[in-house]
Amino acid sequence: MTVTIAYLGPEGTYTQLAALAYSLNLEQHGGRSVNLLAFPSIPKAMQATAEGVTTLTIVPVENSTEGGVTTTLDTLWQLQQLKIHHAVVMPIRHGLLSQATDLSTIEAVFSHPQALSQCQRWLEHNLPQANLIATRSTTEALDHLADNSTVAAISSEWAAQLYNLPILVHNINDHSDNCTKFWVLKGDNRETNLVSGQYTSLAFSLPVNSPGALLKPLDVFARSGINLSRIESRPTKRSLGEYLFFVDLETDAHSQIGQQALNELLNCTESLVNFGTYDLITADPSLAAAKAKTQSTQALP
Amino acid sequence: MTVTIAYLGPEGTYTQLAALAYSLNLEQHGGRSVNLLAFPSIPKAMQATAEGVTTLTIVPVENSTEGGVTTTLDTLWQLQQLKIHHAVVMPIRHGLLSQATDLSTIEAVFSHPQALSQCQRWLEHNLPQANLIATRSTTEALDHLADNSTVAAISSEWAAQLYNLPILVHNINDHSDNCTKFWVLKGDNRETNLVSGQYTSLAFSLPVNSPGALLKPLDVFARSGINLSRIESRPTKRSLGEYLFFVDLETDAHSQIGQQALNELLNCTESLVNFGTYDLITADPSLAAAKAKTQSTQALP
Repeated sequence: MTVTIAYLGPEGTYTQLAALAYSLNLEQHGGRSVNLLAFPSIPKAMQATAEGVTTLTIVPVENSTEGGVTTTLDTLWQLQQLKIHHAVVMPIRHGLLSQATDLSTIEAVFSHPQALSQCQRWLEHNLPQANLIATRSTTEALDHLADNSTVAAISSEWAAQLYNLPILVHNINDHSDNCTKFWVLKGDNRETNLVSGQYTSLAFSLPVNSPGALLKPLDVFARSGINLSRIESRPTKRSLGEYLFFVDLETDAHSQIGQQALNELLNCTESLVNFGTYDLITADPSLAAAKAKTQSTQALP
Repeated sequence: MTVTIAYLGPEGTYTQLAALAYSLNLEQHGGRSVNLLAFPSIPKAMQATAEGVTTLTIVPVENSTEGGVTTTLDTLWQLQQLKIHHAVVMPIRHGLLSQATDLSTIEAVFSHPQALSQCQRWLEHNLPQANLIATRSTTEALDHLADNSTVAAISSEWAAQLYNLPILVHNINDHSDNCTKFWVLKGDNRETNLVSGQYTSLAFSLPVNSPGALLKPLDVFARSGINLSRIESRPTKRSLGEYLFFVDLETDAHSQIGQQALNELLNCTESLVNFGTYDLITADPSLAAAKAKTQSTQALP
């Protein structure tokens, strides 16, 4: 059976690179062939899997420099129809692409806001004169480069190869260990829901006007000896000061300890959603880029 | 003495509206005249106060729909030279500005990413055909409107008046009680550091590889009976999974309870920064807009 994976397009985004790396893993370990499908936004990619149009979706969830991808968390909570199948961590190296031969002639730099932020200090130091312009994806930024040597774009070096664009400066991210965690999501009603794994992700809201309410769920994890690898608050959107909490736990929700903790959580949260138990895969972007290269004649429009 | 306040410009942003509302408060209660100074980014506005160029800075910190403004939190931590003087909460009502007379002719909508997100459902429902394009401020979005009836911008209705632009649809925000909290920041070494107030904001990091470490500071607040009105995690930018926590406490750091809690926190955090104790002011945007109107002949470029 062919697996279809939705991702934030167009072709050349970091999410596609992560999807290619994940496909390699699927093909090597499961012997399944994979088709990637580009969508114009993260919510639309997630919706495609919720509606059964694609088997899986891959979405960025957290970057080591910029933090949580709020659209992903908010959409996951709103849909309540998707489960996490895997987490994929991939190193992110940004290149500065431009037809210019000298930094001093560059007047504007286009990229996705996350990529601009991840290169903020480099840009302030090396291109103080340039306007920074946000685009919806790192690939969309490349549209502005054609026949114009006064602009630059930030994207992966893989995208530069894919679209045959010159790289002016390599590795411009402020933090050399910059990496992004992606989640591979599946529909809630698939047969694979009972997989075991090392991590479990939950979201919960707390009873309103209840001082110290956050302490109770955290105390459940501490007493159970469950390590919290991440906590992120998001507004409920009802009123200022009301939050949802997204937590990643280092535990299997199907284990005895995990099940007991989940039962206790029901007593101290207002609503609680279990996004599933899964394992984490480390992705190699250079292997993925090499895979893409062999397909590039078909893949490019 | 004249007070100068730095804000994210250009003229017409919600931050300027909040600055005008705050100025009214200062003039009425302190009898001090106020000058507002526009800066091209939040970090540059904050830097101006850190360097003594302006007395104060006003910056957005949290929106009821979209959550924390990460640039503000990250810059506050990096500078470690600013204290919070006041919090200002202001209702945010977005208008759709366009030369078009009919929604069906609109092909693109420009605005700041936060404003686009706050109107996301309205846009999906009423302008499914339109491209959503991010700009650095809601005011910058207005540049695209001139003589073009195929585009629209999202901004305050006050900005529409200021730049004499037509409002096609009023109040397009998805949540009617949409509001934003701003912080008014001052330099660390000013004489006003010992003011008392209802709220205290802190940030701390935790010892690395210490399971359950977050529980300890939260337990300090619970045992002291201090309510946590907000917790937000941000990456330390060192490696994936290491966080700073920003918390708002309903307490005065100079009170006996506050001081004891701060002392206990030193024992269970890696680093701890106290951003100060302050009161919260509710801002009326219509009063601020009326004030701006009387100044608008001078204010406009």
